[in-house]
Order: sequence, then structure tokens, then C-alpha cells
Amino acid sequence: MSKLRVAVLGAKGRIGSEAARAVEAADDMELVAAVGRGDKLEALVESGAQVAVELTTPASVMGNLDFCVRHGIHAVVGTTGWTGERLAELGTSLAASPGTGVLIAPNFSIGAVLTMKFSQMAARMFESVEIVELHHPGKADAPSGTATRTAQLVAEARAAAGLGDQPDATRTALEGARGADVDGVPVHSVRLRGLLAHQEVILGGEGETLTIRHDSLHHSSFMPGVLLGVRRVASVPGLTYGLEHFLDLS
Amino acid sequence: MSKLRVAVLGAKGRIGSEAARAVEAADDMELVAAVGRGDKLEALVESGAQVAVELTTPASVMGNLDFCVRHGIHAVVGTTGWTGERLAELGTSLAASPGTGVLIAPNFSIGAVLTMKFSQMAARMFESVEIVELHHPGKADAPSGTATRTAQLVAEARAAAGLGDQPDATRTALEGARGADVDGVPVHSVRLRGLLAHQEVILGGEGETLTIRHDSLHHSSFMPGVLLGVRRVASVPGLTYGLEHFLDLS
Amino acid sequence: MSKLRVAVLGAKGRIGSEAARAVEAADDMELVAAVGRGDKLEALVESGAQVAVELTTPASVMGNLDFCVRHGIHAVVGTTGWTGERLAELGTSLAASPGTGVLIAPNFSIGAVLTMKFSQMAARMFESVEIVELHHPGKADAPSGTATRTAQLVAEARAAAGLGDQPDATRTALEGARGADVDGVPVHSVRLRGLLAHQEVILGGEGETLTIRHDSLHHSSFMPGVLLGVRRVASVPGLTYGLEHFLDLS
Amino acid sequence: MSKLRVAVLGAKGRIGSEAARAVEAADDMELVAAVGRGDKLEALVESGAQVAVELTTPASVMGNLDFCVRHGIHAVVGTTGWTGERLAELGTSLAASPGTGVLIAPNFSIGAVLTMKFSQMAARMFESVEIVELHHPGKADAPSGTATRTAQLVAEARAAAGLGDQPDATRTALEGARGADVDGVPVHSVRLRGLLAHQEVILGGEGETLTIRHDSLHHSSFMPGVLLGVRRVASVPGLTYGLEHFLDLS
Repeated sequence: MSKLRVAVLGAKGRIGSEAARAVEAADDMELVAAVGRGDKLEALVESGAQVAVELTTPASVMGNLDFCVRHGIHAVVGTTGWTGERLAELGTSLAASPGTGVLIAPNFSIGAVLTMKFSQMAARMFESVEIVELHHPGKADAPSGTATRTAQLVAEARAAAGLGDQPDATRTALEGARGADVDGVPVHSVRLRGLLAHQEVILGGEGETLTIRHDSLHHSSFMPGVLLGVRRVASVPGLTYGLEHFLDLS
Repeated sequence: MSKLRVAVLGAKGRIGSEAARAVEAADDMELVAAVGRGDKLEALVESGAQVAVELTTPASVMGNLDFCVRHGIHAVVGTTGWTGERLAELGTSLAASPGTGVLIAPNFSIGAVLTMKFSQMAARMFESVEIVELHHPGKADAPSGTATRTAQLVAEARAAAGLGDQPDATRTALEGARGADVDGVPVHSVRLRGLLAHQEVILGGEGETLTIRHDSLHHSSFMPGVLLGVRRVASVPGLTYGLEHFLDLS
Repeated sequence: MSKLRVAVLGAKGRIGSEAARAVEAADDMELVAAVGRGDKLEALVESGAQVAVELTTPASVMGNLDFCVRHGIHAVVGTTGWTGERLAELGTSLAASPGTGVLIAPNFSIGAVLTMKFSQMAARMFESVEIVELHHPGKADAPSGTATRTAQLVAEARAAAGLGDQPDATRTALEGARGADVDGVPVHSVRLRGLLAHQEVILGGEGETLTIRHDSLHHSSFMPGVLLGVRRVASVPGLTYGLEHFLDLS
Repeated sequence: MSKLRVAVLGAKGRIGSEAARAVEAADDMELVAAVGRGDKLEALVESGAQVAVELTTPASVMGNLDFCVRHGIHAVVGTTGWTGERLAELGTSLAASPGTGVLIAPNFSIGAVLTMKFSQMAARMFESVEIVELHHPGKADAPSGTATRTAQLVAEARAAAGLGDQPDATRTALEGARGADVDGVPVHSVRLRGLLAHQEVILGGEGETLTIRHDSLHHSSFMPGVLLGVRRVASVPGLTYGLEHFLDLS
């Protein structure tokens, strides 16, 4: 069987270089181009790349994807900074190249994606739900983007099921004790030396709790999701947002 | 709106009496009969029961269900001891009463059912998976039935996805250290004063782990699942095995 | 060997009646008086009680202890509401009865006391420490008294060791995300149906974390600490504040 | 203040090179010699090293320590393979150099050492105790040396307190389900992709559990313990076995 011809854009960055190594290590793929800052995009065409892994910056990603789509090269995108406007613009260029697929994923960790999905599925069956996310102390924002997104999905599922406010008899509280309120879901952010990235969603009902916890111990946890995206993107034309749509979860 | 007329069989037992109280406490239900050992089944008909909750013993359950099905009373069954033969026999009597529904659930805890379901869904996406179940020291069997069933479901999902043996370089091991082998999934049983019933499924891939944990702190955790079964069983004619089929999980 | 003669004050309350049962069940104790609201304290003297377990209310406790101390009856006290003034007053009455011992414990759970003690011991060896406490949703205050006390002890240990602020690069935070600040130690309070009382102290250093977690699944968890207090209080004259002093921890 | 002059033996190995970097990064230390296989030990004397960090192999360690002790160079030793005989031999050579200190530590992770210490302290106060240790799937032995040692310490503490067998009503068990038996303490070994080195000691009593968990997410977790040893070894002449003796825990 011939191998999938893969290019990496942003190949000199930390995540990009890890992605290049992961592609090289995969039995069913061939790394045909590793494009870094200053390199020409023509390398994608010359190398016959079928799929491009886009791990650059918000400033570069639109131009890079425009090039890929015009040349019928599928793309798996980890670069951030997506707005409704940008997604619409990308959708327009994809409409002109109907066989091409682009996967944009805010998170390539399969564990993180499943944590969100399972929390969303379970939310309507429990009276209470809170999120504790724990990260290294160098992180600039609290809560994490993943925790905020999880809380929003959980809140939507509760609303759709007609669940009201969570039970909470707190009358006296120190400021901050009950966490941040994200659409009615309390989110608590721990910042601790020795941690990397962890998230725990705790759901509670009469006499029982269900806890879904994701521990990311190394940045390499993104790679299985990237490779899964590379393998499937060609068979899903158009724009897909979120790795969960490639996981056949239902 | 008229309330659902519910009977409890086994109403003098520990779980049965809790179920009777839960039915009474539910806004949309009315407890019309609480039948204990020695009471006549005719009470079900006389009271106009629409759904019976069956929480007796393996010795009584077949007769009780036969009576219910013949009288078109739907049933939600928590009694254990189901074999293929018994299920077939029940299927035959249900065939003669096509509008009647029976739900048999080995576990009514929603948290336990979701733990199994999510573990099964996630299994094919991770290289490794092990189960740690923890119970009070009075438990007679190890592993628990729920843990064994979870391991089997996980093993089936791995096999269906073409996953091979789990990575394990162990060369020297004390007997028992690596747990019980249930179809290739290691299961570890902890028995500890102060615990009730807990289960943790740990899945691991490159650089990350996903943990799904269920803690049952009180036997009342079964009641939301029983009530959910009572509400839905009338709309699902025939035999349903497992509460997960009533949870609209996919 | 003769049994220890024990009285329970507040024996009609929920905790008091449990304490009475625990005393009765102990091989080395005899329950000689169970005094409830309205009963006369003289019963303590008439019954020859050697130790009184005081589980009443802040309104009654001072009078009860004054009676006990004057009659040379040792006391184990779980009633709350202690101020510096009250402790001083009790100290004065104890000075006049030098052989009598009184143990006041804000928490009789051995697990809770050890969690505090171990957190305090470990605090100076880790750069980071945060506390997550989780309780049932009926709790009125956040954080819990135990969590606040633990945070204070940890903060004192850090200060004594010359540790400065914890590392934390957070620049953008939703209000409440980083928890309540108790003397520089972030404390996060989760309130969830299905829980009783739980506390987790997470300490982090270069490449590692140490977590000390206490789970109280039933109010009976107070009883071993009460019985331990009863057995030892006679041999420790004067006022002791905190069960940890009876645990021979160092 | 003048800096402590430190040498690293085994400086070309993975742990040794990390130790050399940690020494260089410490404000109060100077790396004066980094000795690898084939290098001469005389470098220790010529560089004026006050403390040597010994991270070589069982084959080299005795010769290296003999050299250090004869030259009055204190040593902090992470190399394994210590037997009673070897310790006695080292004790003899130390007797001839009474001002010199040697610290041998089977584990330099402060979290691991505290986990052992706290488990040992708590053991006599709980009816039940079990250990779950979790490691990457490349580990060759099960249980880990740390878990075995922890179990032995816990068993000794239980025996000293007169505690008998742990409560366990198990009548039917799959082989291995209840773990390995280390002096009466069940130890369960999980091997999972995505993990590094983790250990959980769970203690249980009436209505409560206490869990002490250590997570090592990176080999760098050994370094704070090594540096602490380097700072203190000169003030503790003779042989010290175990980092816990340098932690002022009681």
C-alpha cells in the first residue's frame, strides 16, 4: 500500500517539529515536506503532499490554508485564533474546491476531547456538576480554554434537558471559594508546580458521583489525534471543526 | 396530568422499601401497592398498577413477571440470577403480550452504567486500560460483577478495533501484583473499611490518561435509575436488558 | 479489668446518640449515663461517670464543663463555639482541679486530623500548595472550617520556612477561578449532590505532586476519634485543644 | 558566602547529567567536577570538591565511595544495589574518617519519601490499608521497589500497634484480583501507557478513608532531594540511609 504523503507547516516550532517526527514514525505516512518560517509554500506542491499539518500562527494560517485549498491539499489545523469571520472565509474558499477537507481542532488530545464529549452526554442525568482544572503555574489564563468550553457544553446540555439551577445552600462564602461561574457551572482553577495539564469533571446525583478526569503528562499527547486527523481528513470534504467529529462516537 | 400507578414487589426488603419510598416521593408517580413475601399478586390488578418494580429473589422473579406480563403490567426488574434460559422463557411470555415492556437491569446506578458505556466507547482509542474497583471489606466476590462486565465490554471493543495485547514489559512480578486477567484487561480489587462501592477505569495513550470513576456512597444511588426505568418502560414494549438502552446515549 | 465509666451529654441529638451507641459497643467502656436536654447533671455523679462526652450546644457547654471539672470528671468535647475567652475561662476552672483533663476537638475524624498534620509537615518542602474541599450541597459555609484551618496551618509552615509567594503567572482570570485566598493558600470549594465531606491538599514541586485526601463517607467516622479521646483524657490533666495531641504523631 | 563545591560522579548518565545541571543551577553550589566513565577520581581532589554526588553503577560505587571517604569528601549516593555486607564495609571505612558523612537514598523524591513516612505514621490508626502503584508499561518489576518498601513499613507499624489481619470477607476471587500480598498488605500494580511513576496508599476506618498519593511526572523530581542531601550531608557525619532522616519530620 502506498503511504500517505504528508507535509508539516510550522515544522521548526516545538509542536511542529514533534508533529514532523510523529509523521516520520508512522508506518502509513511519509513526511514529504517540512516547511518552516521563510520557506516557500510551493514545496507542498513540488513534494506531492496530500495532507498538510498546519501548526503555525494566527498571522500565517489563513494564507497557508488558502494555498492548500487552491491546490487540493487537505489540511489538519492546530493553529488557534479562529473567529466566525475566519471560519466563514475558509468555508468560501472550500466551496470552490469541493473535494478538499480541512479539520480544525482546538484540542488534538483524544483524552481531552472525550472528556468534553462524555461530560456533555452525562450532564442531563445529574443534579450537580463542577469542573476542577489543574495546570502548571506558568499558565496565563484561568480557567483554561478547555475547561471553559467543557462548562459551556455541559450548561447547554443541562438547559436542553430542562434542568434548573444546581443545588447550593451556601450562605457565607469567602470571595472566590465557589469558583468561577461559567453559564452556571462552577469552574475551579489550580496552578501548581509539578503539574502539566489536567481536568476533572465531577457530576453528582443522589448517593453517587461520576468523575471524568483527563491527565496530560506530556505534549506528545497531541500526536495520536493529529495522526488520526491526517488519516481521515481526505475522506471528509469541507470544513470540520473539532476532532470529536472524527472519533465515531455515536 | 394523572400520575403513573406503580407497585413494588419485594417491598419489605431493604432495597424494595427504599424503592417504595422513592416512588412515593416522586411527583409523577403514585404507589398503589407494596407487595411483600406472602402477599397476593392479585393486589397488582386490584390496585390498577401500570408498572411493577420487581425487587424480590431469583426464586420468585419468574412467577411474578409471568403474572405481570399476563395482566399487561409493565415491569422494571432489579432481581438478579438471569440466565439465557430464563431470558428466553420471559421472551416467550412477552411475545404473547406484545404491548408490555420489561426492563431488566443488572445495575440501576446511572453512574455505573455510564462508566461502562464511556469505557466501552473510549477503549479502542487507547493502547492501555486497567480497572481498579474498591469496595467495603464485607464483599464476598472479587472482582465485582460490574468490574468484570466492564472489562469484558472493554475487551470486546479493543478486539473489534483490532487492538492487540496491551504493552507490558513486566518480567518479575509477585503473584497477584498485576491483578486478575479478564479477557486481557487487568482488574484490581481493593477491599477497605470505610468504602462502599467504587470503580475506576484508567485508559492510557501517548502522554495522557483518561480516568472514568464512579463512586457510590449510598444505596439510594439506585433510585434515580429505577424511577427513570418506571417512566419509560411502558413506551418500550418487549424485553430490554440494561438501563443503558433507556439513557439515549447515542 | 474494670471498664471505663462513660457518660454522654447531648445523648438525644444525632451525633450524641451515635456516640452513646459507640460507647456501648466498645469492649472497654460502660455507658453509665445518657443525659439529654432537661435531664439533671447530677446523673453524672450518681452514676459514677469517670469521663463525660460533651456533644451539646455552645449555650450549654460551659455550664456542663464547669460541673464536670468541679466533680473531677474528665471530658471529651465536640461542641463548637470556642473563643479565646471561653478557653481562658475553662483554663481557670481546670486550674482549681489539677487532676482533671479536658479534650476539646474541632474535628474527631482521625483522617481529617492526619490530613491537617501531614499537610503542615509537608508544606515547607513544596513550592506550591492548594486545597480542594468537596461537600454536599446543603452546606452553608465555604470554605469549610477544616479547609480554612488546614490552609492557615500550611501558610504558617511556609512562612516559618521562609517560603515566599507561590508561583502563579495568571494574568487573565474569571472572577473566582483561582479560589479563595486563605493566607496565600488558594482554597476551592465544590458543592455537589452525592458527596458528604471530602478534602484534598495538593502539594507540588519540581516534577512531582503529593496529594493528601480525606473522604468522610459517613458521620460514624467521628466515633473512633471520640473513643480514643475517652481512653486517653484521664491521663492528660488540664486542657488539650485538638485531637492531634493524642495521636503520638512525633 | 562561599558556594559549596560539588562534584558529580556518573555525570554522563541520564540522571547524572541532570544532577550536574541542577547543581549548576543552584545559587549556593558550584559544580567543580563532572566525572564520567573513564575519568580519574583524582579530579575530585584537584577540584577541591567538598561533596560528591554518586550516580554510577553497583560495580563502581564501592570504589568511588572508598576514595571519597579516604579524602574526606562527603557523598550523596543514589546508586542502588546495597546489601547488609556492603553497608557494613562502608561503615568500616567511615569509622576511619569520623568527620565524613555519606547519605545513601533509595529514593530522592521528597514526595515519595513523605508518602512512605506518612503511611507509616497513619497505619496503626486504620483497620484497612492497601497500595495501588501505577507505572509506565516499560517497567520490568511489579510491585515497584517503593511500593514494596511502603507495604513493609506499614505492616511493621500495624504489627507494633497490635493490629491483626485486615478485614476481608472475600470468598470467591479470580486469581490476582486481590493483588500481591506484602506482609499482609495488598499491593496492586497498574502498568499503563501515558504514566510515569505514581503511588497511592489508601487507609480506611469506620466511615472514612485517608489517601496519600504521590505522582512523579518527570525524572527531575529527584533533584530537589539530591540538592537537599548535598546541603546537609556535611553536618551529619557517618552513614545515613534514607532521605527521610534529613527532612526533620519529627
